[in-house]
Amino acid sequence: MVFSVFFPPAAAVQAAKVPVVYYLSGLTCTDDNFIQKAGAQRHAAELGLALVAPDTSPRGLGIEGEDDSWDFGTGAGFYVDATADKWKRYRMYSYILRELPQVLRTLPGLDLDNASICGHSMGGHGALVLALKNPGAFKSVSAFAPICNPTQVPWGQKAFAGYLGDSWQEAGKAYDATELVKAYTGPQLPVLMDTGGDDEFLKTQLHPWAFEEAAKGKLQVTSRMNEGYDHSYFTIASFVSDHLDFHARYLLASGPRI
Amino acid sequence: MVFSVFFPPAAAVQAAKVPVVYYLSGLTCTDDNFIQKAGAQRHAAELGLALVAPDTSPRGLGIEGEDDSWDFGTGAGFYVDATADKWKRYRMYSYILRELPQVLRTLPGLDLDNASICGHSMGGHGALVLALKNPGAFKSVSAFAPICNPTQVPWGQKAFAGYLGDSWQEAGKAYDATELVKAYTGPQLPVLMDTGGDDEFLKTQLHPWAFEEAAKGKLQVTSRMNEGYDHSYFTIASFVSDHLDFHARYLLASGPRI
Repeated sequence: MVFSVFFPPAAAVQAAKVPVVYYLSGLTCTDDNFIQKAGAQRHAAELGLALVAPDTSPRGLGIEGEDDSWDFGTGAGFYVDATADKWKRYRMYSYILRELPQVLRTLPGLDLDNASICGHSMGGHGALVLALKNPGAFKSVSAFAPICNPTQVPWGQKAFAGYLGDSWQEAGKAYDATELVKAYTGPQLPVLMDTGGDDEFLKTQLHPWAFEEAAKGKLQVTSRMNEGYDHSYFTIASFVSDHLDFHARYLLASGPRI
Repeated sequence: MVFSVFFPPAAAVQAAKVPVVYYLSGLTCTDDNFIQKAGAQRHAAELGLALVAPDTSPRGLGIEGEDDSWDFGTGAGFYVDATADKWKRYRMYSYILRELPQVLRTLPGLDLDNASICGHSMGGHGALVLALKNPGAFKSVSAFAPICNPTQVPWGQKAFAGYLGDSWQEAGKAYDATELVKAYTGPQLPVLMDTGGDDEFLKTQLHPWAFEEAAKGKLQVTSRMNEGYDHSYFTIASFVSDHLDFHARYLLASGPRI
């Protein structure tokens, strides 16, 4: 598995450890898209935050049909642990939660016990699910155009039916942020979401209103609808500093380290 | 010819016209690289500057061998007007100076009489040459890792020999920033250059010191050597706001329009 890490200058100070923001990419992406297109590094450098960008699926496993679709298989792991026998080596949920941090602990400079998580589209879904299923594991969670209610939309239904097998409708609830937030009983979890009013997938795949409604009385959710913005990395680049500032509030007890 | 324009929000104000910063890309690039990878739009939006990113050559002319090299022909127009018969339709110098602005004048919101120019590598060469050959046409010029003395380095020699024909060694001086600055007699032209100390092309292709030496007593040049930075768009992303701030000083008489 390939991943990218951005170390801010603060991480080069001997004995210093910097907080970590995980960024989970969307369908078709690799670890490169965020690093090359979001323009996040300069502000992360100013704040003293490390950025970790994993890939979106295993690659090259040789599973029949793994490269047939852009929204299933390679580049589309959906951040679940597959239970369908054919796809059982697709375990992106466990990878992000446990295996990747274990690898990161072998690198100097990262304070892995002080982490937040964000993501885009399929990765926004992944960030919300990982944070909601593991209370306390992440100090805050944010998402750009997340797939908020995957059991109810085509992308999620296709992925869950493939990865979770015949009982996906029930099993999928365990990976559906809107279902998870209804049952959430953990500590307060700050949530920031930005979605574009001109996002071509807003009404068919994203459904931020479903999550907002389900989170009422459970979590403090800031969900912004940004008119004129679409599903692209230009939108992410427009708001990524807001998201880093948001996470910095919870990760940096003593304020930004410039 | 394809080009990209970023209009800042200030350009949407009725009757407002915003200054223009041209960005010329390097070898192998299209109009897309800067727009997708440099992360310049947000700061340009804050300053109220439009960004214009042209392509780096004509494409698909059907000239024999036009796609054979990554450093000559397609994607490598070198911002000259070719005189060699075979390449006479390669006229990137005139395109940037005259044809592109003519097209841009048909779009609303751009103050084309208030423009600056910058570029990267081959595009840094192009920006310096266009500014030095046309005193007063650009309020300021800046470059990331420019090819400063192309008649003396392999990239420039290959390009000039191909585009300018047998007499390229003499003809090339008219497209060599180090030669041009020696003879410059125009009004003061502010110059900012950023080059990476770890740029893999620094000693073989860029030669910023040649330009710095030639510009002494002619122009006020700020040329920074940034240790640890390479030839990539990550370097551009690190310094692009500095360059926009620099141009804004000369383009915005009344200061940034936020």
